[in-house]
Amino acid sequence: MEDCVFCAIRKGEIPSTKVYEDKDFMIIKDINPQAKVHLLAIPTNHVPYLDIMTDDGAALLGKIILKISKMQEELGITDGYRLVVNQGDNAGQTVNHVHIHIMGGEKLKDI
Amino acid sequence: MEDCVFCAIRKGEIPSTKVYEDKDFMIIKDINPQAKVHLLAIPTNHVPYLDIMTDDGAALLGKIILKISKMQEELGITDGYRLVVNQGDNAGQTVNHVHIHIMGGEKLKDI
Repeated sequence: MEDCVFCAIRKGEIPSTKVYEDKDFMIIKDINPQAKVHLLAIPTNHVPYLDIMTDDGAALLGKIILKISKMQEELGITDGYRLVVNQGDNAGQTVNHVHIHIMGGEKLKDI
Repeated sequence: MEDCVFCAIRKGEIPSTKVYEDKDFMIIKDINPQAKVHLLAIPTNHVPYLDIMTDDGAALLGKIILKISKMQEELGITDGYRLVVNQGDNAGQTVNHVHIHIMGGEKLKDI
């Protein structure tokens, strides 16, 4: 999708620190980290909001969450982690391409 | 699962304010809300942590996330919402039965 920063990162047009990549999604470092470990898991497919995902896209999102959980050691989050998805204005969603924040590496603030 | 507060709520053994319920999951009000709207989406199946979910369980988790996104009006989160999953000590997971916090109804703090 044109003008999407995550799609541009995926294509290598904007630099990022990629931690993991496969056909379904990539994990990059958040450029403005709010925790010792702060990563973003970004599905390849450009879908701006959860509510317009397909059933298959939603099932894939669940599988990405499972995959993240199996990568705790390489991601540096073995002592626990938080997954966050922000949707819309009230949540401060800044990029309209569904993504999952992965936070950990230290004791996190209460939500 | 014995001694799981969410399983006991599901069975009606512990009171709660249920907002929604189907065979796959229920949505209840968080008893210690951290936002104007603070709900918990709780899959029926007792799985303590994401990393021991089955592939089918993970796909179902994605479908629950999609379903939540279609219920924004009835949940009072049409202006945006945040989904949070806490795993383990660093994130302050308090009930070892995978669940999704749904927060909204007002401008949320930055994560």
